[in-house]
Amino acid sequence: MGSPVSEPEIRRDTVLDRWVIVAAHRAKRPSEDKEKLSVCPFCPGNELMTPPASLVYVQDGGVVKKLSDKGDERVKGWLVRCFSNLYPALKSDLGFEELVSEVYVLGGVAYTGFGYHEVIVESPNHKAHPPATSLKQLELVMEAYFDVMTRLSYEKDVKYVCLFRNYKPEAGASLSHPHSQVIALPVVPSSVRREVEAFRRYNRERGGCILCDLVEMELGGPRLIYADKYFVVLAPWASLHPCEFWIIPRRHEASFINTHPRERRALARVLKATLTALKRLFNDPPYNYGFHVAPPRWRGESYHWHVEVYPKLAVHAGFELSTGMYINTAPPEKAAEAMRLEIERLGY
Amino acid sequence: MGSPVSEPEIRRDTVLDRWVIVAAHRAKRPSEDKEKLSVCPFCPGNELMTPPASLVYVQDGGVVKKLSDKGDERVKGWLVRCFSNLYPALKSDLGFEELVSEVYVLGGVAYTGFGYHEVIVESPNHKAHPPATSLKQLELVMEAYFDVMTRLSYEKDVKYVCLFRNYKPEAGASLSHPHSQVIALPVVPSSVRREVEAFRRYNRERGGCILCDLVEMELGGPRLIYADKYFVVLAPWASLHPCEFWIIPRRHEASFINTHPRERRALARVLKATLTALKRLFNDPPYNYGFHVAPPRWRGESYHWHVEVYPKLAVHAGFELSTGMYINTAPPEKAAEAMRLEIERLGY
Repeated sequence: MGSPVSEPEIRRDTVLDRWVIVAAHRAKRPSEDKEKLSVCPFCPGNELMTPPASLVYVQDGGVVKKLSDKGDERVKGWLVRCFSNLYPALKSDLGFEELVSEVYVLGGVAYTGFGYHEVIVESPNHKAHPPATSLKQLELVMEAYFDVMTRLSYEKDVKYVCLFRNYKPEAGASLSHPHSQVIALPVVPSSVRREVEAFRRYNRERGGCILCDLVEMELGGPRLIYADKYFVVLAPWASLHPCEFWIIPRRHEASFINTHPRERRALARVLKATLTALKRLFNDPPYNYGFHVAPPRWRGESYHWHVEVYPKLAVHAGFELSTGMYINTAPPEKAAEAMRLEIERLGY
Repeated sequence: MGSPVSEPEIRRDTVLDRWVIVAAHRAKRPSEDKEKLSVCPFCPGNELMTPPASLVYVQDGGVVKKLSDKGDERVKGWLVRCFSNLYPALKSDLGFEELVSEVYVLGGVAYTGFGYHEVIVESPNHKAHPPATSLKQLELVMEAYFDVMTRLSYEKDVKYVCLFRNYKPEAGASLSHPHSQVIALPVVPSSVRREVEAFRRYNRERGGCILCDLVEMELGGPRLIYADKYFVVLAPWASLHPCEFWIIPRRHEASFINTHPRERRALARVLKATLTALKRLFNDPPYNYGFHVAPPRWRGESYHWHVEVYPKLAVHAGFELSTGMYINTAPPEKAAEAMRLEIERLGY
């Protein structure tokens, strides 16, 4: 009484459909911003500051090999390195079970905080964010995204895999070394469920896929930012965030884990082009991006995976928090025009 | 083509149920933070920097009188002053109508940006935020909240009235003079609709009101922060934000506009107690609060109005934006204990 039963713990308010992971230990994680960390735990030479890597990419002659750390040994000379977050939002050594909850009678449900929380360090170079790194390195990052998401998607009791990147402290990054994160959840979060169901409803009511139809309609229109053989980038018509954009594969697939290697190489190029344009247009702003994919093993065939990028150019405040409705001071058509011209100028 | 048809414009993505107000002119509003404004437009003497006030509270002998500005004349010696936002998210001089939209075929709908956006300046004193002002002054602020919300609730085509307060730039306040805002919308936002429907469903399925039942259950429990004759303050079991708390009236009413004067006086006291405790516990953090009320004229009798307070002690990042699920590093039981003890220490 007075404390969560499990640490971490997943709580759902079923009346309001609000999910939260209560994770007190994460309050202890280090922050460059606040503590002026003198050593970066993600830089080469400091590998013992992190848990053993489940996946390490190493250059070996002309090929990239995939290795993993064993016990206290750490693979040296890595290009990309993936390991469990030292301050995980969820823990894989817990079983997934419903907890008896004192508020259950009012529609609250609690589960043990089972899940996976991994870090993908994108480069040995502390400053190699997408605009500042080589296309070749970014292609390796996309392969690592694919490897980690694929592995976690088929772990027992995993219902959704969320891959995201936070850039700068204002967008929630506590360490500045280039990295992404993957959280594998034992439940399907409500906004994912709503989105997947919206795709299914569109398919049932009108046939086809809303995102395929949208891409076709927006090509050549005022919200188009970029298009190549594999991807189309749009400023969505009802953008919640200033300069929000979506990277949409032309080929209809439910998840990033269904992609071809050539699509992943193309995605590296699109991310580099768009994030470089964003950096130049808005003085290197903070941003978040997230991969939107169908839940594994969940009749998700009508869903169309994509990446949503949210530059942090405004503060969402009392109005947004109270209504779920947004005020966006940048019309998507103006944002798309600026991004389109900048990407052309960059020669992509 | 290439720009919104109306300025501002309300857009709804009906597939994903996302609403946004596209308001380009709001990008031009002044910001103390960025521009080092030398003059505060909300301070006495600068009334001509703002539109004429629709409501001004003035002390006249022993009583408070309610006046309004006429044309270029400005009432002097005011205690509370309410006027239209100079950079409104919505404009009342537009008619409310659906716009023909090029993306309508894919489930997007657009409306003219009709609505009201008012500012309530809470004191002539530039630093009189709730912990630093008198209870008497805060009681006037609650009366002004009531007057403005009541008036806007019955304007033609208004479907929802949102009252909120942003404190500090990190929580979205562009001016530091104590003020709150009211936005009256021509639509019911999706999260309000979901919440009202959840109350109605609970009432239909189990009888009674979920918030009445919750208050009864939580009284004396580990998430109770404060209770008096009129209000109960709780850290909700599935708190999304560290140290989030809800101020819940004991008397079941659908909206703040149904309150008695004595309830509003009690609310002033509860806000002062809780916001003072918050300031002392966390070094004066930014916060947002919002009034949650039933939409006017909308069979809202099963709803139970309350105030939700969200301290901004963490950044919601890629995970939250991608899933709608939150990571909260402060268990509500721990947050409630700290707040409860601090409020007792303050003598409330």
